Amino acid sequence: MYSFKNDYSEGAHPRILNALIESNLEQVDGYGEDKYTVRAVELLKKLIGLNNIDIHFFAGGTQTNLTAISAFLRPHEAAISANSGHIFVHETGAIEATGHKVISVEVNDGKLNTKHIKDVIDNHTDEHMVKPKLVYISNPTEIGSIYRKDELEQLSSYCRNNNLILFIDGARLGSALSSDENDLQLSDLGRLADAFYIGGTKNGALLGEALVICKESLKRDFRFNMKQRGALLAKGRLMGVQFYELFKDNLYFDIARHANEMAKLLSDNIRIMGFKFLIDSKTNQIFPILPNRIIEKLQEKYSFYVWSKTDDNNSVIRLVTSWATRQDAILAFIQDLKNFND
Amino acid sequence: MYSFKNDYSEGAHPRILNALIESNLEQVDGYGEDKYTVRAVELLKKLIGLNNIDIHFFAGGTQTNLTAISAFLRPHEAAISANSGHIFVHETGAIEATGHKVISVEVNDGKLNTKHIKDVIDNHTDEHMVKPKLVYISNPTEIGSIYRKDELEQLSSYCRNNNLILFIDGARLGSALSSDENDLQLSDLGRLADAFYIGGTKNGALLGEALVICKESLKRDFRFNMKQRGALLAKGRLMGVQFYELFKDNLYFDIARHANEMAKLLSDNIRIMGFKFLIDSKTNQIFPILPNRIIEKLQEKYSFYVWSKTDDNNSVIRLVTSWATRQDAILAFIQDLKNFND
Amino acid sequence: MYSFKNDYSEGAHPRILNALIESNLEQVDGYGEDKYTVRAVELLKKLIGLNNIDIHFFAGGTQTNLTAISAFLRPHEAAISANSGHIFVHETGAIEATGHKVISVEVNDGKLNTKHIKDVIDNHTDEHMVKPKLVYISNPTEIGSIYRKDELEQLSSYCRNNNLILFIDGARLGSALSSDENDLQLSDLGRLADAFYIGGTKNGALLGEALVICKESLKRDFRFNMKQRGALLAKGRLMGVQFYELFKDNLYFDIARHANEMAKLLSDNIRIMGFKFLIDSKTNQIFPILPNRIIEKLQEKYSFYVWSKTDDNNSVIRLVTSWATRQDAILAFIQDLKNFND
Amino acid sequence: MYSFKNDYSEGAHPRILNALIESNLEQVDGYGEDKYTVRAVELLKKLIGLNNIDIHFFAGGTQTNLTAISAFLRPHEAAISANSGHIFVHETGAIEATGHKVISVEVNDGKLNTKHIKDVIDNHTDEHMVKPKLVYISNPTEIGSIYRKDELEQLSSYCRNNNLILFIDGARLGSALSSDENDLQLSDLGRLADAFYIGGTKNGALLGEALVICKESLKRDFRFNMKQRGALLAKGRLMGVQFYELFKDNLYFDIARHANEMAKLLSDNIRIMGFKFLIDSKTNQIFPILPNRIIEKLQEKYSFYVWSKTDDNNSVIRLVTSWATRQDAILAFIQDLKNFND
Repeated sequence: MYSFKNDYSEGAHPRILNALIESNLEQVDGYGEDKYTVRAVELLKKLIGLNNIDIHFFAGGTQTNLTAISAFLRPHEAAISANSGHIFVHETGAIEATGHKVISVEVNDGKLNTKHIKDVIDNHTDEHMVKPKLVYISNPTEIGSIYRKDELEQLSSYCRNNNLILFIDGARLGSALSSDENDLQLSDLGRLADAFYIGGTKNGALLGEALVICKESLKRDFRFNMKQRGALLAKGRLMGVQFYELFKDNLYFDIARHANEMAKLLSDNIRIMGFKFLIDSKTNQIFPILPNRIIEKLQEKYSFYVWSKTDDNNSVIRLVTSWATRQDAILAFIQDLKNFND
Repeated sequence: MYSFKNDYSEGAHPRILNALIESNLEQVDGYGEDKYTVRAVELLKKLIGLNNIDIHFFAGGTQTNLTAISAFLRPHEAAISANSGHIFVHETGAIEATGHKVISVEVNDGKLNTKHIKDVIDNHTDEHMVKPKLVYISNPTEIGSIYRKDELEQLSSYCRNNNLILFIDGARLGSALSSDENDLQLSDLGRLADAFYIGGTKNGALLGEALVICKESLKRDFRFNMKQRGALLAKGRLMGVQFYELFKDNLYFDIARHANEMAKLLSDNIRIMGFKFLIDSKTNQIFPILPNRIIEKLQEKYSFYVWSKTDDNNSVIRLVTSWATRQDAILAFIQDLKNFND
Repeated sequence: MYSFKNDYSEGAHPRILNALIESNLEQVDGYGEDKYTVRAVELLKKLIGLNNIDIHFFAGGTQTNLTAISAFLRPHEAAISANSGHIFVHETGAIEATGHKVISVEVNDGKLNTKHIKDVIDNHTDEHMVKPKLVYISNPTEIGSIYRKDELEQLSSYCRNNNLILFIDGARLGSALSSDENDLQLSDLGRLADAFYIGGTKNGALLGEALVICKESLKRDFRFNMKQRGALLAKGRLMGVQFYELFKDNLYFDIARHANEMAKLLSDNIRIMGFKFLIDSKTNQIFPILPNRIIEKLQEKYSFYVWSKTDDNNSVIRLVTSWATRQDAILAFIQDLKNFND
Repeated sequence: MYSFKNDYSEGAHPRILNALIESNLEQVDGYGEDKYTVRAVELLKKLIGLNNIDIHFFAGGTQTNLTAISAFLRPHEAAISANSGHIFVHETGAIEATGHKVISVEVNDGKLNTKHIKDVIDNHTDEHMVKPKLVYISNPTEIGSIYRKDELEQLSSYCRNNNLILFIDGARLGSALSSDENDLQLSDLGRLADAFYIGGTKNGALLGEALVICKESLKRDFRFNMKQRGALLAKGRLMGVQFYELFKDNLYFDIARHANEMAKLLSDNIRIMGFKFLIDSKTNQIFPILPNRIIEKLQEKYSFYVWSKTDDNNSVIRLVTSWATRQDAILAFIQDLKNFND
């Protein structure tokens, strides 16, 4: 049984484990004040091309989102999210649990644009309604689409003109930035977003997300908020060691590209067989539409999520690749699909 | 510069890293539903001697405390803690951030007894005050003292008779249960507490705490609460692998005993030199009272916390040992202290 | 300038003020433990026809909703509301501020049915999503529609079978229960809802809402929750005196019927002139669609809300009547509308 | 049975009721945007002597405290209070329910000074602890003591120098400012506090507290926070009418002085009989220490709180007077006490 269920089925990239072993017995300070963390922060600042940013590490994406968003907002302020946004759908109300409404916008491709945001602003007219204040987007989105540079520039410009905070969930940022259709770089995110995070868990790390806070007014006392949400790890070194290893020589992007290539190999071959897709994703998640009878056969040999029904006989499935996906597994899957389709 | 600052200065016990490497490329389900986690849970249940308990893993202690306590309490219910309790002092108001007051009781030895709790209950008389509902104790306490079995039995009995929840913070539980003066076993905790956690981060794990929920009514929907607080790790395997390794053949207690022995070696020798202690701790944290001039000299070669001032010339310092503490470092410290004291 | 803006433009019904004056100098206990409150509670229990219910008084509707809903739910549990529901739209995220998501359902007539709820339940499948637990409906709805008895019975039955809490916001309950098309009585609400409130502020009281808790498990410690949310009034007598006066001889329903009749007089005459309505409301809020040029003229003599645009030339306006609405004002409005329409 | 239990045993001062009656049928806007509220705000600004302040009305003190404090603080920031402070003891954890710790300071006279605050600041050293940010004091305190102008000036100066918010709970502010020993005026509060409230409920109003926000940075979007906490009353006129009446010709202070005089009459006579007091209060709450056998006899004719035990035979009782307290009731009480004491 091979799994295309997600990009966190395996442990960590072997180089990550090696880096942990090598640094293991050195004594360092706790809570992210160690030299490894300092070094990783310096490296990331250099890659982003900004010095006046703050970088903090978290154990997971939901924790990052809830800590950042609750630290950035006053009680009556709300986040705006696509209706497919992770904070709106799949974090068990984590943002609401910190007291903030998430205003959702109905979209088909997982992406927000300035029109969506303007509509929300226009509909929130007085103190009987929450005040929309933070725009939450994911890149790539939860269904594999990505933002182009011009789209992000428009969002950023709109947010700055309207005193809104632009926050980017980058749980799978490596896959977005390594996608064939991507024209964004880390430095663009630093320039356009008020805060964003670089996901490690889904791209080779044991666990870890790097939150980058660009906007000056959002930085103050942030570590208090981390500690309060249980996000300050005693062995903060764990984060520093991993992120340095991931970024010191491009490992992060190399393995993200591998994941994308594996996904492309899958989708190209599935398309050739004549199947449609829910969305044309160039990242490591693809959403082919297959007959249920074929899905059932595939499930005997592969594990993956059935995403949604399209009609009585067909369903969308989600196939996810990762840094660890083996090409032979892809080829076997394609062969099986061909056989089942005959 | 050798550090006695805390028990999380090094990475993980080498066997932990080995176990992570060995299991690394196996594909498993996420969010704690993998076979390694299942195996660790089964093992812990066996060691605790109870089958009808739920076990959940967390990345850190504050996260464990805030998730559990907020899941267990209704909005108007409060926790009772010693004034030295971690949730009262050192978690940046994490419990309050979930909406609950922490009622503190002034104690000298870090420990709560039934008299303390009864006084709190008696003083909370009506709906204009919070309702004390959960008794939070740490074993060992934040200043190294431990609970004897009869003390815990009294607390447990009092809590059950008064419809209170008894919750034990076991961030350093290994040190308590391996202490010379300890007469408690894991099975006693399972029998006497309504919930407790077994700390991994401070005893050999990279990170990880195992929360054990014993009381039936506290179990329901607990994973929802974990997800909402950002505590459900995508690569939950990380917890299962570590805790299985720690407990499969007593590694957890062996290394805790090492830490205690190193602390005893330190404290015995410091006592011989005629110095007093803030408290007579038999765990891996000791609190000698030293002249400031000696402390200053020690600080040139060792790192540790200055805990508090006793008078203008003397202060309490905290020395912490761990699974990784080397005996030669202890001996060197003792020799230096002797030299500085001459 | 006559106002049809809302049903709280005037003070209180004169009989309410008289009752306050008569009882004014008597010394009674505070916080709702006075004899007036006890008497009002007894009376309401009798009218609802249930003895095993708890009744608590609040100063306003948002306060009632947020206190009740946060007291009823565990942290990961959510409320389901129509997209027009007051808690979803017009309470500045008050429910979210207590930590709970409000899941909205797109409806046109302001009303939820079992199909809506089933869809929500079916879409919330695991611990990565909130757990829908409370069904929030308003009767009348925010756009003036009301629930028929069979509809409420179906909702109630569905909720009980699925372990959901049925909560009815009755900010304008008098208007609903006095509507021509109504077939519900207070006793039906007591039988079918788990909790509901009887709005006083919008039907003759100075201020005040009576929350009725029917379901046993929701009653415990409720006054703690009230105090914690700032809802326990020192001079609780103020509530008891008013509600007794409102219900001792049917004043509440008499004045609600007056409001409905005034609304009917308005809507009948507006309909005769050929105008359409957003919805066919039989309660004290009506939503005619008028040409913008007429609206502008009306605004010179009357105050009311422009609810929404229907096209470039026409808009929906909201006209609200109350216990205090004078028939001559209605007739004048109709005459003016006729004149402006010629 | 005459009650000295509290200062909210009666309804409202007759002039308040008259003012409500006179304005009752006038149509005005809701939610505090009516002309009565505007007029009351203008009047209070004039009396405080400041134009650049914001004034908002609430239904009760707990609601005022929780709305203001949660609006003023970021999540990790805490309030400092005397251990007798209302928010610490008697609001059912209302502040904690909004996410903020209340740090208590042990005092005997109910009052905080700069030394207390400095100690708290000094003990909160890093991000593992909450950040003390708001200083909460009550004037008069919960045990009847009051702040002198120099004390308040020192507090204010300390707070400004240390970037702390000074917040004054004035639930019984009338009594403090009308006390024989008072040297503060409303204008001093406006000058020295960052925010304070003027209590109406306990001094003649049916209900109502006027929150004054002086510090510019605390004003923004405050009405959003009010609405979110359920504090924006539909019939906001109710507040405006009352506060205008209370302040238009000094009624507020006249009736507060009456309450103080009645308390003085009581305490002078009790002192003459040789009884001691818990504290020497010059406000409308006094705390004589009486033999239990006398207390029991008094309880047959008067209602009041037994505050605390002093020893096995004696207890402190609390006697509260108000605008409505009759001198003949005081004299009767004194006579009874004399008789019981013989």
